Amino acid sequence: MVGKDKSAVIRFAKETECGTILEFIKSLAEYEKLLDDVQATEEMLREYIFNRHIAEVIFAEVDGQPVGFALFFHNFSTFVGRPGIYLEDLFVKPEYRGRGIGKQLLVYLAGLAKERGCGRFEWAVLNWNKSAIAFYESLGAVPMNEWTVYRLAGNALDKLANT
Amino acid sequence: MVGKDKSAVIRFAKETECGTILEFIKSLAEYEKLLDDVQATEEMLREYIFNRHIAEVIFAEVDGQPVGFALFFHNFSTFVGRPGIYLEDLFVKPEYRGRGIGKQLLVYLAGLAKERGCGRFEWAVLNWNKSAIAFYESLGAVPMNEWTVYRLAGNALDKLANT
Repeated sequence: MVGKDKSAVIRFAKETECGTILEFIKSLAEYEKLLDDVQATEEMLREYIFNRHIAEVIFAEVDGQPVGFALFFHNFSTFVGRPGIYLEDLFVKPEYRGRGIGKQLLVYLAGLAKERGCGRFEWAVLNWNKSAIAFYESLGAVPMNEWTVYRLAGNALDKLANT
Repeated sequence: MVGKDKSAVIRFAKETECGTILEFIKSLAEYEKLLDDVQATEEMLREYIFNRHIAEVIFAEVDGQPVGFALFFHNFSTFVGRPGIYLEDLFVKPEYRGRGIGKQLLVYLAGLAKERGCGRFEWAVLNWNKSAIAFYESLGAVPMNEWTVYRLAGNALDKLANT
């Protein structure tokens, strides 16, 4: 993909780039109107991404500068019997949108999924984000409309843990 | 929990028990009317659970026999900056239901989530499974109704990877 007009170079983020990762996370949260929910710090990202390898991060770089990122981890399907890639965050700076950089990040992860023997590539989208949904459906992604994710957190999680 | 009437002992599954894990996966798939979707084999479970540690399995045991299981893995929230526990499968044999064994498995995982510093405990439920939903809501779990999961698999995944 290098050399193609307006395209980005996709590469794994480095441990020294946790500040940039956090900036991207905050920019995405702001776009999703969830900025107040961000509790992550550079230290937490360093610990869980680069020390414990619970998640991985790739950057899309233009002219040597990261302009977008994807953060992902492996999930596991008991039915397929194989891991999958779950994309937690995808973000491209507004001024670099419209040139296929988001798609380049997705193509890279789809290739990584095949390379690592994964059966699925999944992510969640906010229902009001119609432009993202149209884009994902154009790639052949299918909504899991018959399922709902339930979440326990905060006091409810503490309470169940202490039952 | 040992010694309490009708209660089960919760413990991690062993590598020699992949056959039992696969039976539980198939029983759950049958209940979910998705049995034809099960492609997992004992060898795949051995590889991904006990060799590569991509997922983990706990058993609920009554009178020394596994009667239920939970399969889970770690996800990661960029907003919280910490991992979570994602419960992929939860199943208790029909003849052992109604005595709180499913809840024991959830309590165990909630405790594990706290112990491991996780901020969230999540799982997906089929929308028609009203009894499960009522149970989860009674525990304080909240539906992520504003999000939809999208999935790329099979030919669509191959096609994107080869873009």
